[in-house]
Amino acid sequence: MTLGHVDVIRRSAALFDEVIVAVLGNPSKSGTFSVPERVQMLQESLQNVPRVEVVGVSRGLLVEFCREVGAPAVVKGLRSGTDFAYELPMALMNRHLTGLETVFLPGEPRLEHISSSLVKEVARHGGPIEGLVPQAVVPRLRERIGRPS
Amino acid sequence: MTLGHVDVIRRSAALFDEVIVAVLGNPSKSGTFSVPERVQMLQESLQNVPRVEVVGVSRGLLVEFCREVGAPAVVKGLRSGTDFAYELPMALMNRHLTGLETVFLPGEPRLEHISSSLVKEVARHGGPIEGLVPQAVVPRLRERIGRPS
Amino acid sequence: MTLGHVDVIRRSAALFDEVIVAVLGNPSKSGTFSVPERVQMLQESLQNVPRVEVVGVSRGLLVEFCREVGAPAVVKGLRSGTDFAYELPMALMNRHLTGLETVFLPGEPRLEHISSSLVKEVARHGGPIEGLVPQAVVPRLRERIGRPS
Amino acid sequence: MTLGHVDVIRRSAALFDEVIVAVLGNPSKSGTFSVPERVQMLQESLQNVPRVEVVGVSRGLLVEFCREVGAPAVVKGLRSGTDFAYELPMALMNRHLTGLETVFLPGEPRLEHISSSLVKEVARHGGPIEGLVPQAVVPRLRERIGRPS
Amino acid sequence: MTLGHVDVIRRSAALFDEVIVAVLGNPSKSGTFSVPERVQMLQESLQNVPRVEVVGVSRGLLVEFCREVGAPAVVKGLRSGTDFAYELPMALMNRHLTGLETVFLPGEPRLEHISSSLVKEVARHGGPIEGLVPQAVVPRLRERIGRPS
Amino acid sequence: MTLGHVDVIRRSAALFDEVIVAVLGNPSKSGTFSVPERVQMLQESLQNVPRVEVVGVSRGLLVEFCREVGAPAVVKGLRSGTDFAYELPMALMNRHLTGLETVFLPGEPRLEHISSSLVKEVARHGGPIEGLVPQAVVPRLRERIGRPS
Repeated sequence: MTLGHVDVIRRSAALFDEVIVAVLGNPSKSGTFSVPERVQMLQESLQNVPRVEVVGVSRGLLVEFCREVGAPAVVKGLRSGTDFAYELPMALMNRHLTGLETVFLPGEPRLEHISSSLVKEVARHGGPIEGLVPQAVVPRLRERIGRPS
Repeated sequence: MTLGHVDVIRRSAALFDEVIVAVLGNPSKSGTFSVPERVQMLQESLQNVPRVEVVGVSRGLLVEFCREVGAPAVVKGLRSGTDFAYELPMALMNRHLTGLETVFLPGEPRLEHISSSLVKEVARHGGPIEGLVPQAVVPRLRERIGRPS
Repeated sequence: MTLGHVDVIRRSAALFDEVIVAVLGNPSKSGTFSVPERVQMLQESLQNVPRVEVVGVSRGLLVEFCREVGAPAVVKGLRSGTDFAYELPMALMNRHLTGLETVFLPGEPRLEHISSSLVKEVARHGGPIEGLVPQAVVPRLRERIGRPS
Repeated sequence: MTLGHVDVIRRSAALFDEVIVAVLGNPSKSGTFSVPERVQMLQESLQNVPRVEVVGVSRGLLVEFCREVGAPAVVKGLRSGTDFAYELPMALMNRHLTGLETVFLPGEPRLEHISSSLVKEVARHGGPIEGLVPQAVVPRLRERIGRPS
Repeated sequence: MTLGHVDVIRRSAALFDEVIVAVLGNPSKSGTFSVPERVQMLQESLQNVPRVEVVGVSRGLLVEFCREVGAPAVVKGLRSGTDFAYELPMALMNRHLTGLETVFLPGEPRLEHISSSLVKEVARHGGPIEGLVPQAVVPRLRERIGRPS
Repeated sequence: MTLGHVDVIRRSAALFDEVIVAVLGNPSKSGTFSVPERVQMLQESLQNVPRVEVVGVSRGLLVEFCREVGAPAVVKGLRSGTDFAYELPMALMNRHLTGLETVFLPGEPRLEHISSSLVKEVARHGGPIEGLVPQAVVPRLRERIGRPS
């Protein structure tokens, strides 16, 4: 979870009546943090943002979750045309399966350099991750994968 | 105005509380139809779509209009990554000027071949434009620029 | 194998004298189905398409296979500009090695949401895969990787 | 007409039974050369390429011409993903109108710098256009738009 | 001339021994400002940047100018992959003609919304152009094309 | 290491005062050759190119290495707009971390088909790799991963 994600959530919350942040577990790979850990960090980072709820989703397709909670659309941040080409088949598949729409918000340029994989690489080498991830994530990410800086 | 535009408006109306379709006049080039003509055709094409209002805007920046009517975001259809690269600076400029957001909806693939300029070219050669533009536009476009088919 | 592949094969068969569908085994990763299984399913799915032959190729470069069977060109479906950027070096490498050409057919937009990986993900969660893969593939894919739906 | 066009035509002629080069007049803008002049130059440049015919088409849609001559597909050269994004709606529109297919051949990288507009700009400033356009075009283009070099 | 141009020039000056800013006149269209006016504004905006010289070039190809002044490379800012696809043929043509190289600097994301055409549109409607163009340009652009704000 | 890399290094050496080729070890995956092997092969391939030094870097971020050796910028080859979209976040991250700039050189089109992964695939099947990698690499790559041809 990076400041880029937080920015997209924050801006979504200003546009929509209710925003549910779905933290999806991926059974086929073990991420840096577990689903409950990620839910916890997101809740801390978003605690002053109204109309946002963070929910962990351990299994199932995104479309199923959205149907259960009554969400008519998914919001995604978009950084480049290549991003869009990657996201488009997923958006169309979701629409095909249940009619779920996807709306894209252009990413904040000031945060364009922040991708999860680059942040992890910086952390792994003990580089400065302040200004890349929310304050609540900094010490945990450093403890989990970083060298002492 | 094509079926692609109508599709994006229709899907926006299902997601948002209120959709205002702004028909912008471009003083530096004379389009095929005037602003009032375009407003009229859009109203006919959208008359069974709830929560949509069509408004002609003869002058001024889009951000000014949105501020006047209290719109927090613009909705745009997106067909390809190249589209996004073209739209991005405009979206960021609008955010810079007044904080106006832009949300992108992926275009409906079944309508991907329908661009305004291609439709006009088909009409100009008397080709079949049914299935490309709304029914309300077919006879007027044919009368305005098409050869008798 | 998805309906997208079948569509490109079908349209190729309408344009070219003879179409050979090469099912390439990848020794470095074990796919969902073996080469003979994929050949079998393709043959069932394409049995009413004239001028098409399905062949399993267990080893070697694609250019070698094409030289053996006398194919002057490979046909690939293309969904986006990003697809093209990915395919281009391969196409140029094949031309460099043996003069083998690559011709690209734009994918059918109605099938744009269908990628192999997304179909597998839908199947893995027991979602509906009818309308995504040929009828001959549905039960086998569901049996192989899907939960009971 | 550049060496890039000639290369795509030449390679098409090696793949297809018959290639018809359609020189389309554009009534809304006057090009550097008239349709008959362009037909003449193409014929000279392609005289040793078998199975190629050059035809001037003064009016009508490309799909109509293809239906008249019985062409099932159009061949286009493709230089980049952005090219593809530009060509795709046209290809899909042609398929929508009459079922006409479009097949794309990747451009020859050695000729990637050669676009019609850049060649004209070089000619306009009296730069060397040998190696950019066919030999038959060099003196005529220089006479038409170039300064004496 | 925008703050984006100034940023690329400034960063180039930190990397290269000498930077010559070539202001090219375009005989086929009359810009908002003449070549001498643009040279004057650039000089004012860059007066505290060392190793930069501003030169007006009224005629000829860019490659000729670079050969005359002994410049081995051109520097261009790059905002997106679509930008690159547009710039690439020019870069390759210049290399073909005289061996002139082109090096690309990624644009500053904070300035990504600033394109010349958008700035002019903002100015035309009397919008705020401070923060988009250098201070030396603000009053002149407003006088030339803007409404009183 | 391919002829594409050598080309970019060679052209960089013609533009910049000093070029340091950093061979980065990747601890999380074992490449085809070790860092010392790659340094050795690069030195052999570049021995007649002035102003170029090859250095193995076994650990740490690229920005740290550049700060240690005083390099103000990284040079990268760029083949397509998709390449740029991939490289851009890394370039911006490096600028964020230490101010390190990235300059992009467009790849040589004649070498556009040469990517490391394609070369390895050709070698794995015993195909001809002369003309794809430097002469110093041919026998070693064939010995390491190729079948006898």
